[in-house]
Amino acid sequence: MTNAETVFDENDRELAASLFERIRAMSMGRQGVTRPSYTEVETAAMRVVEEAARDAGLSTRMDAVANLVVELPMESTAKPFWVGSHFDTVPEGGNYDGLAGCVAALLCLIKAKQRGGITRPLTFIGLRGEEAAWFGKAYLGSYAFFGVLTPEDMQRPHRDTGRPMRESFESVGVDVSLVTGKKPLVDPGSIGAWFELHIEQGPILEAQGLPVGVVTGIRGNYRHLDAHCLGVAGHSGAVPREMRHDAVFALAHLLARVDDAWGRFVAEGADLVVTTGMIGTDPQEHALSRIAGDVGFSLEMRSQSLDTLDAFHTLVLQECAVVEAERGVRFELGERIETTPAVLDATLMENTREACRELGMPFMDIGSGAGHDAAVFQKNGVPAAMVFVRNQGGSHNPAEAMELDDFMKGVEVLYRAMTR
Amino acid sequence: MTNAETVFDENDRELAASLFERIRAMSMGRQGVTRPSYTEVETAAMRVVEEAARDAGLSTRMDAVANLVVELPMESTAKPFWVGSHFDTVPEGGNYDGLAGCVAALLCLIKAKQRGGITRPLTFIGLRGEEAAWFGKAYLGSYAFFGVLTPEDMQRPHRDTGRPMRESFESVGVDVSLVTGKKPLVDPGSIGAWFELHIEQGPILEAQGLPVGVVTGIRGNYRHLDAHCLGVAGHSGAVPREMRHDAVFALAHLLARVDDAWGRFVAEGADLVVTTGMIGTDPQEHALSRIAGDVGFSLEMRSQSLDTLDAFHTLVLQECAVVEAERGVRFELGERIETTPAVLDATLMENTREACRELGMPFMDIGSGAGHDAAVFQKNGVPAAMVFVRNQGGSHNPAEAMELDDFMKGVEVLYRAMTR
Repeated sequence: MTNAETVFDENDRELAASLFERIRAMSMGRQGVTRPSYTEVETAAMRVVEEAARDAGLSTRMDAVANLVVELPMESTAKPFWVGSHFDTVPEGGNYDGLAGCVAALLCLIKAKQRGGITRPLTFIGLRGEEAAWFGKAYLGSYAFFGVLTPEDMQRPHRDTGRPMRESFESVGVDVSLVTGKKPLVDPGSIGAWFELHIEQGPILEAQGLPVGVVTGIRGNYRHLDAHCLGVAGHSGAVPREMRHDAVFALAHLLARVDDAWGRFVAEGADLVVTTGMIGTDPQEHALSRIAGDVGFSLEMRSQSLDTLDAFHTLVLQECAVVEAERGVRFELGERIETTPAVLDATLMENTREACRELGMPFMDIGSGAGHDAAVFQKNGVPAAMVFVRNQGGSHNPAEAMELDDFMKGVEVLYRAMTR
Repeated sequence: MTNAETVFDENDRELAASLFERIRAMSMGRQGVTRPSYTEVETAAMRVVEEAARDAGLSTRMDAVANLVVELPMESTAKPFWVGSHFDTVPEGGNYDGLAGCVAALLCLIKAKQRGGITRPLTFIGLRGEEAAWFGKAYLGSYAFFGVLTPEDMQRPHRDTGRPMRESFESVGVDVSLVTGKKPLVDPGSIGAWFELHIEQGPILEAQGLPVGVVTGIRGNYRHLDAHCLGVAGHSGAVPREMRHDAVFALAHLLARVDDAWGRFVAEGADLVVTTGMIGTDPQEHALSRIAGDVGFSLEMRSQSLDTLDAFHTLVLQECAVVEAERGVRFELGERIETTPAVLDATLMENTREACRELGMPFMDIGSGAGHDAAVFQKNGVPAAMVFVRNQGGSHNPAEAMELDDFMKGVEVLYRAMTR
């Protein structure tokens, strides 16, 4: 097989590099990159990309829920294909998680305009607020687009300030009456497809020596953002072991049991990851010499199988009951936030594989452990496809890394898949 | 046996109640009582007690390290007996931990002055800074008195502000050149005894139905104030189980193993308590969807046996090595702060028991799980004795409770023991 022609050149690569570096410089945290959801920092990153789009002659605007829209219109009865990703990051994360897909989408629209011959309109949507880190809920930008946030969501406290999410939305110009209206900004039936390039957020492509992957499905998750283990506080020297109800040791036993149970699930072939990313006694009252009466923690489980999520969650509740009975403590897991798993569109997926094959690009099918806006589009009736790009440093941490060569390979695949 | 006469009356009881309530009102935290070490709140509590001492005709002053001194002088060649406790509390603790011993000492000096016939001078010392919660090191007031703090200690950061301890000392008028001079303010050989009344900080007297206890010894401890488990941060959805180095789950396994080991020690008869009072991922970087690369924790073990402390600490290090090898993480326990166990003075202890017997007061011998300034005096050459008073609500928490009837019984024992 002769490899198909690649369409991106050194100029495109330089534009991408320049955008990545300018936006990185605007969003440096104490370490790593911090672009909080629904903030001026996120807006500033969007403006840099918007300016590049305008320089290339593309029309741009912010939609009513403050996502960036870049359009390459066309007189055609074919439904437009949409492409994009998100601009925000977790606190002290990496630069490419989200931004890579936005820059890739921009490059594809610029190239389509330059080359012509496109048979349908193309639209790049740059979303806000994909990361759950800031308000405890993910995919805010795409949820806002589909109008499926709830009034309770709008009261979610910001992780640092405690202020309600509504205020952050309003601060960047979102019409908040739309985001909870159960009505999408655009009829999903009128959108032909959603394409998204994203760095892989795990180590699999790197371990396999492959630059890109074609995503087959996206893990759903069950999340407890603010769970607590409640025991009885006391003096650390004066209460004998048999009279204690130590919240920290009780939680340690619970998490050790949960981790062991996870190991058994994986050994039996289940797709599952389990994480307690946040844990803490209250700094206002904890002390070296005080048995903790309360320790807070988060608990997240992710799987491509809803049955696995249900089975594991049931097991977690059983383990809580065991530790409660053994140690005289009480677990309050609080609200369970649910995101169901998504299977991506089979036709688009095969188109993307074909693009790889035509380009002679080595690739693999890969499940996504992380959640993505693509899942929200797919679940709301827009056929969705994703391309992963290899990442050497993991994700949601400052070491996240992507080779520009790999990125440009991903962009070639993306362009070919969405313009077939 | 006919019970000996009690010497305290309704007026004394009312004075005690009034002092407790006035000082409680001055030091309310969000919940419970907060009198931070080496602060104006602590000073204000001392001033209330000092005023009551002056009203009773006793002479008062602050010594060079800002502890309160109340004296009942006497022309006598007998060495003075000292009595006292501390004024500070942990954050959001109870009112009586420390303060009960200060009020008891005041009542004893007032009564001795009223009744006369005392054969030696009596001095009440009201100490500062006994609680480790504020600077990670306990017994600061008595250590300052003996001049045994180190220049490094003076740099210890405050738990909330991070400012060095030296600044807090200076803010209340301590001559900081004295506290690290290895020279006590008063020759220990010139002090006849140290008496201290304190609430029991555990549930034993309550469980035994006894109002008072005679303390036989004080647990020492090994403490790690700022230990860390270091793993590798990553995306919570995208890193498979077998590639993770999750700091939180690793620490959970360590603490579960440490707790199990503690259970074995206790089952074999060892005197030991183990506590992780503080635990936390970094709020500046943790997230629901981020595998923690670093979690901080405290670890404290207390025992009346130095051998037990050494054996258990060795086992903790072994368990760290096991978890490190299994999970690819690293434990950094940091500085080990050591307080050796103390055995109190046998003669004074028997005098205190005799006081109980003469008063017809039911009592028990009891080891102290918590540390006390009395241990510092005993270890620095001053024979020391302690009386415990029953406490219904545990210690180092807002529920701490003491019946005034029990307190007055403890004061009777204290007075009789120190004036025999």
